[in-house]
Amino acid sequence: MSVTAPRGFVASGVHCGIRASAPDLALVRSLPSATGAAMWTVNRVQAAPVKISQKHLELAQPQAVVANSGVANAATGRQGELDAKTTATEAGRLLHLPVEEVLVLSTGVIGVPLPVDKVLRGLEQAAGELSGNGGEAAARAILTTDTRTKQSTVNGDGFTIGGMAKGSGMIHPNLATMLAVLTTDYPLEEGEAIDFLGPAVDESFNAITVDGECSTNDAVCLLANGAADVSRTPDLDLAFAAAVRHACSDLAQQIVADGEGATMLAEVTVTGAASTAEARALARRIATSSLVKTALFGRDANWGRVLAAAGSAPFNGGFAQLDPDRVTLRFDGATVMRNGTPQDIEPPAPRDVCTIELHLGLGDGCASYLTSDLSYDYVRINADYRT
Amino acid sequence: MSVTAPRGFVASGVHCGIRASAPDLALVRSLPSATGAAMWTVNRVQAAPVKISQKHLELAQPQAVVANSGVANAATGRQGELDAKTTATEAGRLLHLPVEEVLVLSTGVIGVPLPVDKVLRGLEQAAGELSGNGGEAAARAILTTDTRTKQSTVNGDGFTIGGMAKGSGMIHPNLATMLAVLTTDYPLEEGEAIDFLGPAVDESFNAITVDGECSTNDAVCLLANGAADVSRTPDLDLAFAAAVRHACSDLAQQIVADGEGATMLAEVTVTGAASTAEARALARRIATSSLVKTALFGRDANWGRVLAAAGSAPFNGGFAQLDPDRVTLRFDGATVMRNGTPQDIEPPAPRDVCTIELHLGLGDGCASYLTSDLSYDYVRINADYRT
Repeated sequence: MSVTAPRGFVASGVHCGIRASAPDLALVRSLPSATGAAMWTVNRVQAAPVKISQKHLELAQPQAVVANSGVANAATGRQGELDAKTTATEAGRLLHLPVEEVLVLSTGVIGVPLPVDKVLRGLEQAAGELSGNGGEAAARAILTTDTRTKQSTVNGDGFTIGGMAKGSGMIHPNLATMLAVLTTDYPLEEGEAIDFLGPAVDESFNAITVDGECSTNDAVCLLANGAADVSRTPDLDLAFAAAVRHACSDLAQQIVADGEGATMLAEVTVTGAASTAEARALARRIATSSLVKTALFGRDANWGRVLAAAGSAPFNGGFAQLDPDRVTLRFDGATVMRNGTPQDIEPPAPRDVCTIELHLGLGDGCASYLTSDLSYDYVRINADYRT
Repeated sequence: MSVTAPRGFVASGVHCGIRASAPDLALVRSLPSATGAAMWTVNRVQAAPVKISQKHLELAQPQAVVANSGVANAATGRQGELDAKTTATEAGRLLHLPVEEVLVLSTGVIGVPLPVDKVLRGLEQAAGELSGNGGEAAARAILTTDTRTKQSTVNGDGFTIGGMAKGSGMIHPNLATMLAVLTTDYPLEEGEAIDFLGPAVDESFNAITVDGECSTNDAVCLLANGAADVSRTPDLDLAFAAAVRHACSDLAQQIVADGEGATMLAEVTVTGAASTAEARALARRIATSSLVKTALFGRDANWGRVLAAAGSAPFNGGFAQLDPDRVTLRFDGATVMRNGTPQDIEPPAPRDVCTIELHLGLGDGCASYLTSDLSYDYVRINADYRT
């Protein structure tokens, strides 16, 4: 059901011709008046739709989202911004909304102009096909190298959250080539959505990695239309916050599991770091190490590479604090090093879901990261991507 | 000739049994009294031989270097330090040198104890085989996944520099799993060697990358024994400094060209950055991007990925400055973006040596990086490494 699971949302997904044959244009709309928020890539090179949508959000509450796959409309200069604006304008016209109430998202190849004529023709079809059952079609239309749709539905006490996402390579903190659209019928006041979305994104989409890349396009947005028949209480707000976190985590895990070429998942947990920020830097470094990830692909419990990566985790212009004599490392449950002394034990070969737990004995900082392995298929997919 | 090219150096390389059949123990010695310096990995997890050698350098001038391949003697706790010390002690005994005048280097698998009995037996053989023609054998004995030896000889005006190196994966700034031993018959006073070695390493070994990894073991050392029949002048010192840079660059290029699975080389040059430090951060980010490197492997001039990488170059806790509207990008000679506007041009497929030139229009900072592509073979080599 994805984005159409909550009351008052319609969606559609069509093939407009940017991609050879796959669906490539999604439309999501709230019928009651909605409020919303979004978080964007922090890459200094932002795609045109990101710039346009950010401006729109400053001016109005979002009521609809247009997302295309196949072309990122990034590194396309002034013309790219005009194309993104034209897309939003036409969607607004078709949906009877001011242009500022439309967000536009794109994902695909960088540096290629958006075929705007195709998008406009596709929009007309997509607007005509909007329905309360369109969530699945929308979720399909935003995929690129993904092998399956990512959808989530969370049923709360009287309210519902729906979500769709795409992304399988270039996945990294700060929303790298990942799109996610979340919808809910929970009632939120203007300006409140970011308070629920921000923390949820931090501990989900910003704690996964496939290849350490940070993209030009990516975005997570949340639309809330209040169509649920609930009265807000502090307790219900807490339940809603937890439900948003759950939906984000669910989608983020689906993204890593479908990582380009991924054959397994690894959860990296760092505890006892000097600070939370350092724990994050350490977990990220381990989770993005090519040598750790190729060892995982080879199902080799090569824990020495974990230590080598941890010893060089960039932090504040240097490396995160680590005292080799205090390190305890567990690899898939086996303690291979205790307080800096290697244990005479060969851990079993990593399974399809592997845990790497590093304890530093320096402080209270802790963080987790979800990652995948680095396989032949990652190379194949990305060496061939444009062809 | 490698390390035995300058006058007064002898070397040998033997098989002591750490590796199945390949040579795995190298010995280098200066016959006249030498001075020297070394630079070490900045990884917070330092291998035992790195710690021991650093202590030795504080106490004495190095006269000999022992290097083994196959086992890194890293993450081996207190026993690892004892084993490194035992190795240096035995080498000193055989060569009639105080233990502090011996440097020990190791490269190979992390987390595995050094088979010290094998090393001691090998040392006896290596000491017996020391000769003025042993440079090539020594260069062979330090290899791991390398497919060929790396040797360099620079003949100056009356002096000579010789060098050997190893390293093909885990290559990254700050001496990541790379060993290099440089020798010269140029006369240097105590404490001077670092003044020549430091700048040369910065612009050579610290400006190459294969996979963004930073290892626990790596080291570059320089021994100078003054056996050349020259009188130092300021001009000759300058010529010597240039020769050290040349030797380091030569070895560094051989390392990248033999990068694990590398099928091509790319030189990334950043100009017009806000500062030199930011230029380095940008060049490094592009040179380590998995998406850029897989595109190079696919011989795909996918310049959009270069921009996406540049926009997310870690610097000082944020990203290096970049204004997309001022960027000019040349890919293998073709200008694909000028002042932020994409040019309607499809660059030719990258050749075996490809140039990526990014101009930012922000300041005077510039830097270069040498990198290789990311291929199936990189994954194969590193998924299989321990087996």
